[in-house]
Amino acid sequence: MDVKRGEVTVPGFLASGIEVGIKEAGKKDLALLFSEVPAVAAGVFTKNVFKAASVLLDMRRVRKGMAQAVIINSGNANAATGREGYTDAVEMTRAVARRIGIGDELVLVASTGVIGKRLPLEKIIDHVDELVVGLKPSGIADAEEAIMTTDSYPKIEYRKMSLGSRAVTICGIAKGAGMIEPHLATMLSFILTDAAIRPDCLTALLKRAVDRSFNCISVDGCMSTNDTVIILANGKAGNRPLTKSSKELHRFEEALTDCLEGLARSIVRDGEGATKVIEITVKGARTENDARKVAYAIANSNLVKTAFYGKDPNWGRIIAAIGAAGVPVPAESMELFFDDLLLFRRGSGVAVGTQRIESVMTQDLVKVTVKLGMGRKSARIFCSDLSFDYVRINAHYTT
Amino acid sequence: MDVKRGEVTVPGFLASGIEVGIKEAGKKDLALLFSEVPAVAAGVFTKNVFKAASVLLDMRRVRKGMAQAVIINSGNANAATGREGYTDAVEMTRAVARRIGIGDELVLVASTGVIGKRLPLEKIIDHVDELVVGLKPSGIADAEEAIMTTDSYPKIEYRKMSLGSRAVTICGIAKGAGMIEPHLATMLSFILTDAAIRPDCLTALLKRAVDRSFNCISVDGCMSTNDTVIILANGKAGNRPLTKSSKELHRFEEALTDCLEGLARSIVRDGEGATKVIEITVKGARTENDARKVAYAIANSNLVKTAFYGKDPNWGRIIAAIGAAGVPVPAESMELFFDDLLLFRRGSGVAVGTQRIESVMTQDLVKVTVKLGMGRKSARIFCSDLSFDYVRINAHYTT
Repeated sequence: MDVKRGEVTVPGFLASGIEVGIKEAGKKDLALLFSEVPAVAAGVFTKNVFKAASVLLDMRRVRKGMAQAVIINSGNANAATGREGYTDAVEMTRAVARRIGIGDELVLVASTGVIGKRLPLEKIIDHVDELVVGLKPSGIADAEEAIMTTDSYPKIEYRKMSLGSRAVTICGIAKGAGMIEPHLATMLSFILTDAAIRPDCLTALLKRAVDRSFNCISVDGCMSTNDTVIILANGKAGNRPLTKSSKELHRFEEALTDCLEGLARSIVRDGEGATKVIEITVKGARTENDARKVAYAIANSNLVKTAFYGKDPNWGRIIAAIGAAGVPVPAESMELFFDDLLLFRRGSGVAVGTQRIESVMTQDLVKVTVKLGMGRKSARIFCSDLSFDYVRINAHYTT
Repeated sequence: MDVKRGEVTVPGFLASGIEVGIKEAGKKDLALLFSEVPAVAAGVFTKNVFKAASVLLDMRRVRKGMAQAVIINSGNANAATGREGYTDAVEMTRAVARRIGIGDELVLVASTGVIGKRLPLEKIIDHVDELVVGLKPSGIADAEEAIMTTDSYPKIEYRKMSLGSRAVTICGIAKGAGMIEPHLATMLSFILTDAAIRPDCLTALLKRAVDRSFNCISVDGCMSTNDTVIILANGKAGNRPLTKSSKELHRFEEALTDCLEGLARSIVRDGEGATKVIEITVKGARTENDARKVAYAIANSNLVKTAFYGKDPNWGRIIAAIGAAGVPVPAESMELFFDDLLLFRRGSGVAVGTQRIESVMTQDLVKVTVKLGMGRKSARIFCSDLSFDYVRINAHYTT
């Protein structure tokens, strides 16, 4: 659904985003999402061993299934900061809770930015009042702007649907362009909905939707310490609360997944330095895990990614990547396509003009299909190419 | 040992390298290594599922433990070329065998270059005579030049030692700059020695030496279809043949390993676009495999590699890479060093001036040490950084 960014609202939710000086001057870096009433909450987090302080805190709090606010800063990840970092995260939530007059445990927190530096806590605490005063229904776009780091554009997705006689809104925001890999391929994403839904049901739903969206993309194969997806459902739509046995659950899940898929693709398209998106589909695998292994082996090969950047018809690098994936792919049965163009079958290349391959590689979206001929399982993932700009952006990130 | 390239010789071996037009004009692309007598031979090959034709052929022939010649072309990998490609590889060896007057099965073959294109077999066959006529003891340097692709300098290592009263020479050549990862981190390497050694003993020795050298480096985490290491030992030194129970075997193994380590480091230093070498040592792991997993997670992280290129003191990316390695590293006990500089301990960063970190990162060789505090096993690997030139070199490789 096409709406202007400033007009995006979800009944019962307020948001704000301001500049407090964590990032360079002129950039928003602190955001607050707030539900007028305590909302049902669920979260999915990074599997990195070194989880950021915010992740550790949220994992504890979200277990209770309820939350009312999320405070988010960009410019500092508050990761690899030890016990002090954890205390900083707690203080952030406490400042919000006190100012609003709700319990600490109803406030969640997320951080993104440089790893290993203490959070400039005072700057944040000093601006909590401004943040709360600035809350408004149309503040979601400001909040999105404040959570961006190397993102080159904001990522907001918006869906409307009905549940029974009630109109329901789902709105997701996300940030992320680098450190993007499987198992939470986003840095941060927050989904606000006025749907009424039971906590256990929301948790299961979010996990499935994340598996089908954020867990199907890769920019650089690097897993972050801070990946966080949080959904708040405040029930303001007044629908009969969704449960695992609701007939309408499936339609809500489809809308939610669709919203997250939109955000996930937006992240790949905005992958650091990306000039194109590569959609990799692996079919005919014995297991879904095998299909994913092969797809990610292609997606994370620097040689494949640079070839796509240069529009170099060097499809042999894809063959090499598949062969190194750890799946015993039979050369005789495997086939490789760029769009509908067959490039490899029965163990060797098909005579195709270089120009035809190049013209496919020039597209903004290139579909790579691999048929393994081993079984019936498949997987599809999206990745970006590897350009000079990826190196430029990442060679001087902190300085 | 420092010798001028043109002066490198190994008793009983002849070599040559010429230009036959597989690569662009002015570049040698066909090499021949020849032993005056049948030599004991052993090989280690890529684990890629899609093995090049030359690899498939060599794996069969080397089992017999004897070889007398190796023909090598650069500019075309003869991989993903099916049965026709295999026949081409056989034809290459047959042309050499006939011209010299030895059995086909005594000739090995290796190829490197673009994957997925048929070999220009005629160009090769037409020049076999020139190749054989050009054989000379000092031809090793020409052969090395002819096997290079994106290498920016030749890689030759030379060791002399004595076994009993006999002087023994070990000379290794290698090519490789990209598609460099564990499990044969070289594209091609050939080692010539006049030592006398039993075949089973040589095979075991080569495997161990490769594990300690070529299997400890990474440029881009991409595993090739063509990786090949072949050793020929012609016995011309006249030493009492080495067996598994020889007292002197250990010294020979050390010299061989040292030679291969020299080649391996030379490959990393010449990694596509590399501006520095990063030596990653992981200590205190429960198993060697865990230590290697953590080391490679760091070595293959594009974010870590670009940070080293930019001398960006962003050590938090190493923490993120370690945390994603699949090893349950305890944050509390882990420590991270750049050279002797402690950067992380007890779960958080140590206050170190940015300038001190930057000055370490400016070095040609940066030592990264990770102490896991989980056990007593360790691993050390070498990798290169990720620069603009890596992208430049690989975005337009075939065109």
